[in-house]
Amino acid sequence: MSQSKIYIFDTTLRDGEQVPGCKLNADEKIELALALENLGVDIIEAGFPISSPGDFESVRNISAVIKNATVCGLTRAVKKDIEVAADALKGAKRPRIHTGIGVSDLHITTKFNSNRDDIRARAIEAVAYARNFVDDVEFYGEDAGRADLSFLASMVEAVINAGATVVNIPDTTGYCLPHQYGEKIAYLFNNVPNIDKAIISCHCHNDLGLATANSIAGVMNGARQIECTINGLGERAGNTSLEEVVMIIKQHESLGLYTDIKAELLNPISRLVSETMRMPVQPNKAIVGSNAFAHSSGIHQDGFLKNAENYEIIRPEDVGADSSKIVLTARSGRSALAHRFQKLGYNFNRNEIDVLYRAFLKVADIKKEVSDEDLKALAVSHFPEVALA
Amino acid sequence: MSQSKIYIFDTTLRDGEQVPGCKLNADEKIELALALENLGVDIIEAGFPISSPGDFESVRNISAVIKNATVCGLTRAVKKDIEVAADALKGAKRPRIHTGIGVSDLHITTKFNSNRDDIRARAIEAVAYARNFVDDVEFYGEDAGRADLSFLASMVEAVINAGATVVNIPDTTGYCLPHQYGEKIAYLFNNVPNIDKAIISCHCHNDLGLATANSIAGVMNGARQIECTINGLGERAGNTSLEEVVMIIKQHESLGLYTDIKAELLNPISRLVSETMRMPVQPNKAIVGSNAFAHSSGIHQDGFLKNAENYEIIRPEDVGADSSKIVLTARSGRSALAHRFQKLGYNFNRNEIDVLYRAFLKVADIKKEVSDEDLKALAVSHFPEVALA
Repeated sequence: MSQSKIYIFDTTLRDGEQVPGCKLNADEKIELALALENLGVDIIEAGFPISSPGDFESVRNISAVIKNATVCGLTRAVKKDIEVAADALKGAKRPRIHTGIGVSDLHITTKFNSNRDDIRARAIEAVAYARNFVDDVEFYGEDAGRADLSFLASMVEAVINAGATVVNIPDTTGYCLPHQYGEKIAYLFNNVPNIDKAIISCHCHNDLGLATANSIAGVMNGARQIECTINGLGERAGNTSLEEVVMIIKQHESLGLYTDIKAELLNPISRLVSETMRMPVQPNKAIVGSNAFAHSSGIHQDGFLKNAENYEIIRPEDVGADSSKIVLTARSGRSALAHRFQKLGYNFNRNEIDVLYRAFLKVADIKKEVSDEDLKALAVSHFPEVALA
Repeated sequence: MSQSKIYIFDTTLRDGEQVPGCKLNADEKIELALALENLGVDIIEAGFPISSPGDFESVRNISAVIKNATVCGLTRAVKKDIEVAADALKGAKRPRIHTGIGVSDLHITTKFNSNRDDIRARAIEAVAYARNFVDDVEFYGEDAGRADLSFLASMVEAVINAGATVVNIPDTTGYCLPHQYGEKIAYLFNNVPNIDKAIISCHCHNDLGLATANSIAGVMNGARQIECTINGLGERAGNTSLEEVVMIIKQHESLGLYTDIKAELLNPISRLVSETMRMPVQPNKAIVGSNAFAHSSGIHQDGFLKNAENYEIIRPEDVGADSSKIVLTARSGRSALAHRFQKLGYNFNRNEIDVLYRAFLKVADIKKEVSDEDLKALAVSHFPEVALA
């Protein structure tokens, strides 16, 4: 089967960095941008140049050091924003301006005190103006998730005619269900005559825990770019997790898609971003959480030791994680205990393991985790002749 | 539209508690069980009684105190497990035994060294045996996510005939895409003649970040129970997050579904579980993360202040969270700054706000968050006559 490439648009340094507490200094931003390029992302959204002098400088600095990835700057559909972004991106090898405006009736009326025709005219003007500065212009229709579908289609057609190379369909509030977001993308492919002249992009938020599923529904229906962040950072409940969509595309060959991300760097960059942006990753986070490859229940440990694939669909080393952990707790079974004793150098027979297992459970009911030192103590107290051999 | 109830089966105390570091003592388990009942969950999976003496005691203690919810104990498809679970559940008002066995060919061959017919026979025997002790027996077909579909259908039919009141279709490894999991449930509804005699249950894992979306796909295709945990705790990357599926069902009336969960208790119980089980919730966690309702970018803050619905689909007070936060950072705009000054009691005009905004951005480029004290200092240094009035 021939495979289509999904472009990975990373916005850790823009949508992620605007999170309370995540602000980076100039050096940190450059360090992360270089790490993202090394990871293999196609586009780095480096900041929102007009928002502050510091952000302008960051986009300029990142533009100067990035060699292969596209560097993107965010703007509103406002001339001054676009001029400042173009200025910040001047040194970039592959600059992109990301401009846009709200397209749901709620945004049009309450944010802009305007109407659909005026908003469409402003969008066309902004895209055409941005094309004076760069060849690569992405348009976002903010709150597209709640926009009128036929109006949205007319907007997409108009901005592509105006020169947009990429059109981003954000589910800004994270409201859509996956089938709804997928149908929205399918509708655009069926109703926008010039849609093949641009790349359609998914930008999903995680307010209901659906950003990853929505992005996958988007690319299953024709979108070819996913906007995402390391660890799913971003406003409120965050953006689509880069590591999740990349591994879904990699594990599900039937989708017929691929990315250029080096999966084995996912855990190292997750840790780098978490530390630099001071934003913890919960232990039960998919792909990059500290427990993502930890097995603790007896049934799971037994099955895992017989064949890792019984409980693991991804090998931890493929995503740069430490190898799978078998953690001994009150939920562990005999086979995990015997396996650990073997690793510690003890060869107990089945009857001995039965005795040790009963003693182990008593310890495990009191302590949260049973350490190797605890096991050695158990071995010595019950079978000193074996343990000390 | 008539609405169907989705039963919420909470397994925080079983699948959650088996996580490394999450072990609870007897009092903590009772405290959480009572909090879960108060939250409105329909079924509390209290533990795996045969796994350790401590777990047996916990299931017994919880059975004694829970008045309305069903209390459930896990077993393998093994007579001794079932007897011990029945004993632990003796005091429960509404006891349920949850028994099962692996149903994918991988589990059948590498875990059980067996074949499909033998596995089906063992399943039937376990369910029938459990029905000798309790009227409510749930069967799980472990690794159903990767099982042969027609064999899975034959298993479901057989265990319902044997007396199962609920049949759980776990995606044990978190591998399924939402449309695949949904199609699996739809296939069962189309191919299991007696399926209306039982409730079909979704038990999804989050290894690819899809547990929530898969559970929703399940109930859209006829399942009527979701197995989930507070904060998405559980083996590896965890289980479906209770708070996410509950709020999706609540926010999307078009699904025609409801739960009996008291949404305003979601944030308090999230904090209780996080503290008691010593398992942090990341700030960008949907519904219950500390940033879930924090707005920091200028565009968002401006739009939010004009109409909260521009950026919020859930009111924080509806899920028991503190009210929405406007955090002032280098990404904030003039309208958020003016709003905060007003809250602090200063009435600056537009020109004054322009002056203050430039000074604010210089502070914000250095500090991560600009505090009210910083703002007062700015006000006094630039407009002492207004600020001190």
